[in-house]
Amino acid sequence: MTHDKGLVVVLSGFSGAGKGTIMKHLLEAHPGDYNLSISATTRGIRPGEENGREYFFKTREEFDSMIANNELLEYATFNGNSYGTPRAYVEELINNKKDVLLEIEINGALQVKEMFPDALLLFTTPPSALELKNRLVGRGTETEEVINQRLAISCKESQGMGKYDYLIINDNLDKAVDQVHNIIQSEHYRTSRNTISIAQVQEELKMFERSN
Amino acid sequence: MTHDKGLVVVLSGFSGAGKGTIMKHLLEAHPGDYNLSISATTRGIRPGEENGREYFFKTREEFDSMIANNELLEYATFNGNSYGTPRAYVEELINNKKDVLLEIEINGALQVKEMFPDALLLFTTPPSALELKNRLVGRGTETEEVINQRLAISCKESQGMGKYDYLIINDNLDKAVDQVHNIIQSEHYRTSRNTISIAQVQEELKMFERSN
Repeated sequence: MTHDKGLVVVLSGFSGAGKGTIMKHLLEAHPGDYNLSISATTRGIRPGEENGREYFFKTREEFDSMIANNELLEYATFNGNSYGTPRAYVEELINNKKDVLLEIEINGALQVKEMFPDALLLFTTPPSALELKNRLVGRGTETEEVINQRLAISCKESQGMGKYDYLIINDNLDKAVDQVHNIIQSEHYRTSRNTISIAQVQEELKMFERSN
Repeated sequence: MTHDKGLVVVLSGFSGAGKGTIMKHLLEAHPGDYNLSISATTRGIRPGEENGREYFFKTREEFDSMIANNELLEYATFNGNSYGTPRAYVEELINNKKDVLLEIEINGALQVKEMFPDALLLFTTPPSALELKNRLVGRGTETEEVINQRLAISCKESQGMGKYDYLIINDNLDKAVDQVHNIIQSEHYRTSRNTISIAQVQEELKMFERSN
């Protein structure tokens, strides 16, 4: 028995909740189990970067044509540069029963969910709002103004938490990584993700009955 | 952060799929984590049994009055004896954030799901229908007629597999026990089971904003 397809897993969460670190450690802890989605971007390539490794580097024209041809699962623009998730890359992986991880913000997450209703949406959060504030303050690298801006964004983002499937409580990094891994592996056994195997068992049992 | 309530977990599955064994090993492997639901029954108490340990022993009148008063989550009759799951016992446990395990057949499972839409329904199956047949034959204790009857029942039961939430593939006992444990623990983090914690984080973040 095996699940029908790989999973599209979206990890979002508050700034300061450690989603990037969780993703990195998850990939390291389970080599071969997960694939990181590679985004397309219009921003210029930097020294040390490689096309198709950090990003698929695109011209503005190419990027706009990807949007027009529905080749992006989601996209967003920050500081004049556009970033998006190529649909073909994700589809190829899940059709080969490989799980794909995407680290994107809530608007992108909901766009992905619309395209792939079976996508798994995970929201990373510290154990409490106070802890989130303390972590931002504790870094000691941000001005009070920046911290307040970030908390205001978190406040807005928190309104969408209920649209996610699971919470990832990042109190302890190793535990949070285990939690993400266990959730994904458990979801593989959801009946709605095993329709082919179930149909096969049902068919086999019918054949036994007919042969009696 | 903690989930709102304990989980009602129903384990069903094909005869010969080992659900009883999984249940027993799960309880032993994680002492204190799970509680087995104790059924009410009209069958007579046997030597060595204790009221409230193996079963809650009831007269027919008492049992019928429990049905009439909606005090049973589900019930069924086998060989003239009735068996049912007392609602109060299950509700008390989940309100104290304790997970309750029920080992019942599909009709009972669907009755429970109607009463508790948040109940988690798990269906235990060997890796294939052929393996199921081989296990029944391999026991060497059943006549061909009994084996065929059991396979016919399995064939009928298999039609309901899609109504369950997860499949438990019992290929290896330890793995199946881990799988059940991981599914239950992962489900604790489902956003729909953490509405109180989410509302609290949202409220705290709003308070930070107001204080700026």
